[in-house]
Amino acid sequence: MQKIELMRKAIQLSIENVANGGGPFGAVIADKKGNIVSTGINQVTSSCDPTAHAEVNAIRSATSKLGTFDLSGYSIYTSCEPCPMCLGAIYWARLDKMYYANNKTDAKNIGFDDSFIYDELKLKPSERKLPSEVLLRDEAIKAFEDWADKEDKIKY
Amino acid sequence: MQKIELMRKAIQLSIENVANGGGPFGAVIADKKGNIVSTGINQVTSSCDPTAHAEVNAIRSATSKLGTFDLSGYSIYTSCEPCPMCLGAIYWARLDKMYYANNKTDAKNIGFDDSFIYDELKLKPSERKLPSEVLLRDEAIKAFEDWADKEDKIKY
Repeated sequence: MQKIELMRKAIQLSIENVANGGGPFGAVIADKKGNIVSTGINQVTSSCDPTAHAEVNAIRSATSKLGTFDLSGYSIYTSCEPCPMCLGAIYWARLDKMYYANNKTDAKNIGFDDSFIYDELKLKPSERKLPSEVLLRDEAIKAFEDWADKEDKIKY
Repeated sequence: MQKIELMRKAIQLSIENVANGGGPFGAVIADKKGNIVSTGINQVTSSCDPTAHAEVNAIRSATSKLGTFDLSGYSIYTSCEPCPMCLGAIYWARLDKMYYANNKTDAKNIGFDDSFIYDELKLKPSERKLPSEVLLRDEAIKAFEDWADKEDKIKY
C-alpha cells in the first residue's frame, strides 16, 4: 500500500472507533514495502488502561508479532499527531518515520490534554502542575551501577 | 507504609530486576494511606515491548486491578525520573504526585535515551531527528467532528 492508503486506513480506524464508543484515534504500522504489520485504536475506556492509545497499541501489537522490541525499518501512520507518551513510545520503538493527520491543536479543540502535557514536559519538575519530590537517590543509584557493571546485559 | 519505605520498595525492585536480566528500573503505586496498589519493573527485553517501562507497567497493573483508567488519589514512586513516555502516562492516569530517585542525567550516563527524547519533544516536528510528514488532515478531522458531536461519549 502507498502512504496515502496507509493513512486512510488509520483514519478509517479512528472514525470506526468513535462509532464503537472509543476515542477518535487510529494507527497503522507498516514495513518499507507498505505491508501492514499492525493496527491500533484507542482503548482507554474500553480496557481501563490510560496508556492504551492507538499508537501504543499498534507498537505493542507489532513488537509482539515480530518478537522484537526494535521497530527499525518500520513506519507509523497515526490519525493524530502523537501525544508525548506516544511520541516517547515511537522513539523507544526506534520507528523510522511517523506520518500524522490531525494535529495536537485539533486534539486540544475537542478536549484532549496533549498540548497541556507537551507544555508541562518542557518545564523543570519543580515548575510543573504535577507535584514531584526526589527521594533516596543515593540508594537508587546502586541499580544503575549494577547495570553499568553487568557484562551480559541486553541493551535496549 | 511511609513514603521512604515505598521508594525503598521501588528501588529494591530496580536492583532485583538487574540481577534478573532486566533494566534497572522499578515503580510502586500507592494510595493516600500508603497501601501499595501495584508495582512494576522494566520488561522491555523480556516481553519484547518497548513500552514496558516500570511506570507504564505499574499504571497498567493498577488500573486493571481497580477497574478504572483514572488514578486520581494515588501516587507513583519510581526509582528513576520518568522518561517522556512514562511522564505522559502519569499525566493521562491523573496520578496525584510522583516521587523519583535517580534522575534523567543519571539515566543518560548509563546509556538510556531519556534526555535525548526530552530534547526532541521540545522541538517542532520538522526540527526533530525523527522524520515526520502530515497527510490527509482534511479527511482525519471527521473523527474529531464525530467525537465532538457524540452525546454519549465517555470522556477521559
